Amino acid sequence: MDKFEERTIHTETVYDGKIIRLEIDDVILPDGKPSKRELVRHPGAVALIPITDDGKIVMVEQYRKALGTTLLEVPAGKLEPGEAPEVTARRELEEETGYSSDKLEPVMTFATSPGFADETIHLFAATGLHKVDNPAQGDEDEFVELLEIPLEEAVVMLDEGQIRDAKTAFAILWAERSGRRK
Amino acid sequence: MDKFEERTIHTETVYDGKIIRLEIDDVILPDGKPSKRELVRHPGAVALIPITDDGKIVMVEQYRKALGTTLLEVPAGKLEPGEAPEVTARRELEEETGYSSDKLEPVMTFATSPGFADETIHLFAATGLHKVDNPAQGDEDEFVELLEIPLEEAVVMLDEGQIRDAKTAFAILWAERSGRRK
Repeated sequence: MDKFEERTIHTETVYDGKIIRLEIDDVILPDGKPSKRELVRHPGAVALIPITDDGKIVMVEQYRKALGTTLLEVPAGKLEPGEAPEVTARRELEEETGYSSDKLEPVMTFATSPGFADETIHLFAATGLHKVDNPAQGDEDEFVELLEIPLEEAVVMLDEGQIRDAKTAFAILWAERSGRRK
Repeated sequence: MDKFEERTIHTETVYDGKIIRLEIDDVILPDGKPSKRELVRHPGAVALIPITDDGKIVMVEQYRKALGTTLLEVPAGKLEPGEAPEVTARRELEEETGYSSDKLEPVMTFATSPGFADETIHLFAATGLHKVDNPAQGDEDEFVELLEIPLEEAVVMLDEGQIRDAKTAFAILWAERSGRRK
């Protein structure tokens, strides 16, 4: 049993949608008291740190309805049911950037919002990039603009507050550190 | 107008809870086609990178119902309505760690799950730490265990996959880079 585990008494599914499902759990806290937990179920996702041979990080600019603004992010996408994260990663890389990768390496897997959601992102580094001739197309409701930004410039953008997405902030620091170690 | 902006035609509030609100927006995509967006509204949060004078990062271990597991994280907490992030940060630092900080500095602000949620985390570095005599108590339904981990050890834990929370992964790389620059 996990430390401070909360025992579920009842689960109510409030909404089951295209991407997320909302559940309200009645739980018993470690001290025996009852409480409620609002939980967003998400299929999980992948994100990529694509680095070109000349040291540029490939990013996408995308409108995010939840925030009402356009964000600059590393490429990412949801897992399809039963799909291995590496398969999703290769698909999303091609669809969003038109690149395929000779070397896709797992970097880490992290929860994005553990306080209310189970979304987990599998992050991969993608190097040995080359353009695909007729890249697969992405989701119909996805509009992205591609940018290739020299890594040192991305670090400056991070320090100046122009990066406002958590996975992308991590990706930039990871790539900077990784480059320094070579 | 933001690039690729999606125009909202109608918003339906499906659930309005203790922490989150779920809205389904009917939108018009940039190409004129209709679509739906599932949006989780969250009050926003703060997180801290507390570093002791002897180079330890203060973290908390906490059960996360959404993931069904205990995570090691930097201290964090939700914003109260109208509360300035720095005020929340000082409160959460005291409640979760028993420390107050002589030097609280904004690091960055990022969205945690821009694909479906508007949660934004204001991240602060906290140094000049000293224990408070009678620290304020946290939420009734929050059970956390305090850990102080030497920064170099936290970096190893990150590389070995023992850190599974996005904001904490960023916090560790940021602290490592910040220490190297001194």
